[in-house]
Amino acid sequence: MAIPAETFFLDPDSDQTLQQQIQQQVAEAILTGRFQPGERMPSSRRLARHLGVARITVTIAYTELVANDYLASRGRSGYFVSDNAPRPPNFAPQAAPTESRVDWSRALGQRFSHRATLTRPPNWRDFRFPFIYGQADARLFDHQNWRLCALQALGQKDFEALTSDYYERDDPRLIEFILRHILPRRGISARPEEILITMGAQNALWTTAQILLTQRRTAVIENPCYHGLRDILSQARCITHPVDVDEGGLPPDAIPGGADVVFTTASHHCPTNATMPLERRKALLERAARDGFLIVEDDYEFEIPFLRSPSPALKSLDGEGAVIYTGSFSKSLFPGLRLGYLVASEPFIREARALRSLVMRHPPGHIQRTAAYFLSLGHYDAQVARMGRAYRRRRATMDEAIRENGLKVSGRGTFGGSSYWMQAPDGIDTTQLAQQLREQSVLIEPGRAFFGADQNITSHYRLAYSSIATARIPDGIARIAQAIREST
Amino acid sequence: MAIPAETFFLDPDSDQTLQQQIQQQVAEAILTGRFQPGERMPSSRRLARHLGVARITVTIAYTELVANDYLASRGRSGYFVSDNAPRPPNFAPQAAPTESRVDWSRALGQRFSHRATLTRPPNWRDFRFPFIYGQADARLFDHQNWRLCALQALGQKDFEALTSDYYERDDPRLIEFILRHILPRRGISARPEEILITMGAQNALWTTAQILLTQRRTAVIENPCYHGLRDILSQARCITHPVDVDEGGLPPDAIPGGADVVFTTASHHCPTNATMPLERRKALLERAARDGFLIVEDDYEFEIPFLRSPSPALKSLDGEGAVIYTGSFSKSLFPGLRLGYLVASEPFIREARALRSLVMRHPPGHIQRTAAYFLSLGHYDAQVARMGRAYRRRRATMDEAIRENGLKVSGRGTFGGSSYWMQAPDGIDTTQLAQQLREQSVLIEPGRAFFGADQNITSHYRLAYSSIATARIPDGIARIAQAIREST
Repeated sequence: MAIPAETFFLDPDSDQTLQQQIQQQVAEAILTGRFQPGERMPSSRRLARHLGVARITVTIAYTELVANDYLASRGRSGYFVSDNAPRPPNFAPQAAPTESRVDWSRALGQRFSHRATLTRPPNWRDFRFPFIYGQADARLFDHQNWRLCALQALGQKDFEALTSDYYERDDPRLIEFILRHILPRRGISARPEEILITMGAQNALWTTAQILLTQRRTAVIENPCYHGLRDILSQARCITHPVDVDEGGLPPDAIPGGADVVFTTASHHCPTNATMPLERRKALLERAARDGFLIVEDDYEFEIPFLRSPSPALKSLDGEGAVIYTGSFSKSLFPGLRLGYLVASEPFIREARALRSLVMRHPPGHIQRTAAYFLSLGHYDAQVARMGRAYRRRRATMDEAIRENGLKVSGRGTFGGSSYWMQAPDGIDTTQLAQQLREQSVLIEPGRAFFGADQNITSHYRLAYSSIATARIPDGIARIAQAIREST
Repeated sequence: MAIPAETFFLDPDSDQTLQQQIQQQVAEAILTGRFQPGERMPSSRRLARHLGVARITVTIAYTELVANDYLASRGRSGYFVSDNAPRPPNFAPQAAPTESRVDWSRALGQRFSHRATLTRPPNWRDFRFPFIYGQADARLFDHQNWRLCALQALGQKDFEALTSDYYERDDPRLIEFILRHILPRRGISARPEEILITMGAQNALWTTAQILLTQRRTAVIENPCYHGLRDILSQARCITHPVDVDEGGLPPDAIPGGADVVFTTASHHCPTNATMPLERRKALLERAARDGFLIVEDDYEFEIPFLRSPSPALKSLDGEGAVIYTGSFSKSLFPGLRLGYLVASEPFIREARALRSLVMRHPPGHIQRTAAYFLSLGHYDAQVARMGRAYRRRRATMDEAIRENGLKVSGRGTFGGSSYWMQAPDGIDTTQLAQQLREQSVLIEPGRAFFGADQNITSHYRLAYSSIATARIPDGIARIAQAIREST
């Protein structure tokens, strides 16, 4: 039986090529049993005419399908569905029960979905004034070289790195580059057994909490604080003690007795951007040695210092091995990469590696290798330098627009960063403000998520400039100022 | 100052191109401060002569470095280290403490590293007779098309899928393909909100245990059992009750009262390869409904049925929504991909998604998109069909060699798979046997890891044929038989 050309159609809105669309339709029809082995395909001439495409497009699609054994070519008789084509199953799927009859309120042993995290709309790229934090800017990313590195990492000689289930170790090239080039820039010197690749900083912090904290132990966090860390600690069910930060970040004197682990963003406090002075760092390390607590240093944003050199990491001053350092490529490359790392004493890294193996085995090898190439060929530093130049321009524009519009800055960072911590006038609830601004295509981040649920602090908000074009900044800031005026 | 060409050298053993080596050496020298801004690079002619490469190789490397602002070209004066080149830090890293002074035995709240998992040597590819399980065979993998799909997924129009931190959802294309094409072949029909992408089956099982099990709940597992699951449950600290399997897999009658969750590999028991008959499946589901327990179906190896059609999944018979189904691409694509999925009722998937977000945010978008292309263009099914043909040949050869050498098969699977569960003669400890065989370049998997630590069962072993060439099988099996004879 011949398959009529009319069963094919092209989707003008598809983002796939014409050839791919044809290939996909044939494969799908065979896999679902709509086309049967032995049936004759429309001739390439006929199908091309029907679809209004070049004949060569159909021919290439057919050739691909022959290579994959979906079709067989019988010389001048044309193309047929292959006898060896993948077969559909010989049983009909049963309709899914629309309602589960299980009592899930009883069946779920632990719940994770009650957390109210700061969210941004999935379509944030469609907003004209996206003052949102931590997302990649397509205009600044060196897509071309990333692609070349990925392609190289997909080559035949990297097959093992791509496919292997190598959960005891990480990509040695990536580890080497981080040890030799990334960590020294933070003043940190470490050995290979003191580092572990993680699925981003979130995964690094989560891992740390699992290993160090129990229900009887006390974690000290900064207040305000990265909301993802609050979520992690609430799930770990440890005792959590928030300590208010000031313009120098976390004050070591305010840490209560009995702390087991102190979490800090010393170099660049999240979200206020405060940098902890050297004296405080030394005092913090001394207290850690005296009181016997560990310090987790979340160095989430060091890579983009464009105003002046950053101070070395807290970890670089750590003579006791009491600092667990977390770093990430989310800001300098892109967050969807999900690559970060933990640097700590070997006994800790050993447990972190075992836990990682239990939870997920390992971060995909291909991604590790691609990053290793991108780093070692110098693209990474070039990328960071390029972002630094753009951020410096944006920040100057932000400074000017904020001043002109009379908005109040609560913290802006001294060596760089990508955001301002802002203070709205008394009486303004920034959660509502953010909601109103969305209607004007402006995205800001209300500050409430950075405080504890029991604190009713609603007047802060964060303005990031990592995803907004410089030219849009003045208009966006003006809209925020206007919305604030209308709300007071 | 001019940089002498003599500071450059090429590594003949490097797997990078000559151009990349030059590029990398320049970038590294600048990043470490060895080359300073304003210094003149050797001319391309001079460096090419010194290294013995074509001048164009040096020129291209230099051009790349100019694009990244490491070098600047000053017309006929040549190339100089750029004034805007990325800078080394202006502080010296301090030496790491060689010994941590922290009392880690006290500091670690929870330990994960005490588990003794089945291991294979990292250099298993160097063994001539690798009868090991679950690794990708470079000869069977459609590397070329995977590479093309990855390249497409790295294109400008997929930038968002590559870079976004989209943790609330998964790649809609991948979800759609799994729902429309993968699950129907297992008889399963599901909605998008009933599926979650995981980091492989390990991560799916781990997630399930976190959500469903507490220290007061009881998990029933098959005995023998996938050792990774034992590790997961021991960390979850639930009560674990092993039930001995027979030639029909898990007998529902043997499940003790009070079970909360029953883990089963119904379609293809791990490691014995037994397939659970339809009557047992129905009986298992009836008991689940009566006793109120949930079933976790680990369908880790369905995709390669080459002897006859597989039976539909247990999940396809699930009228209550009591089955949580886990699938994976580790066997059909490759384990380093770390892609799997959970299919279950919406209340469960909601918790799993929240937990995933907490632990790692999400599996990398680029990998999801690459897999979506590979699947939708038909390469996946072609790959599975190709593997099926190779496995059928290998299995026939295995059958013959095992018979000729008088080895005893304990379980071989009825519809396909990739391994045999073997029984050595009484008195043979297969852990020692495996160790002896390594010296003869033979890798087998001792069976002990599949049993509980308290059971001293040492006479089983697993022989997989997913990574060994057909031609090597007879000689490899003969060596195993010889070693067994010598040990008795």
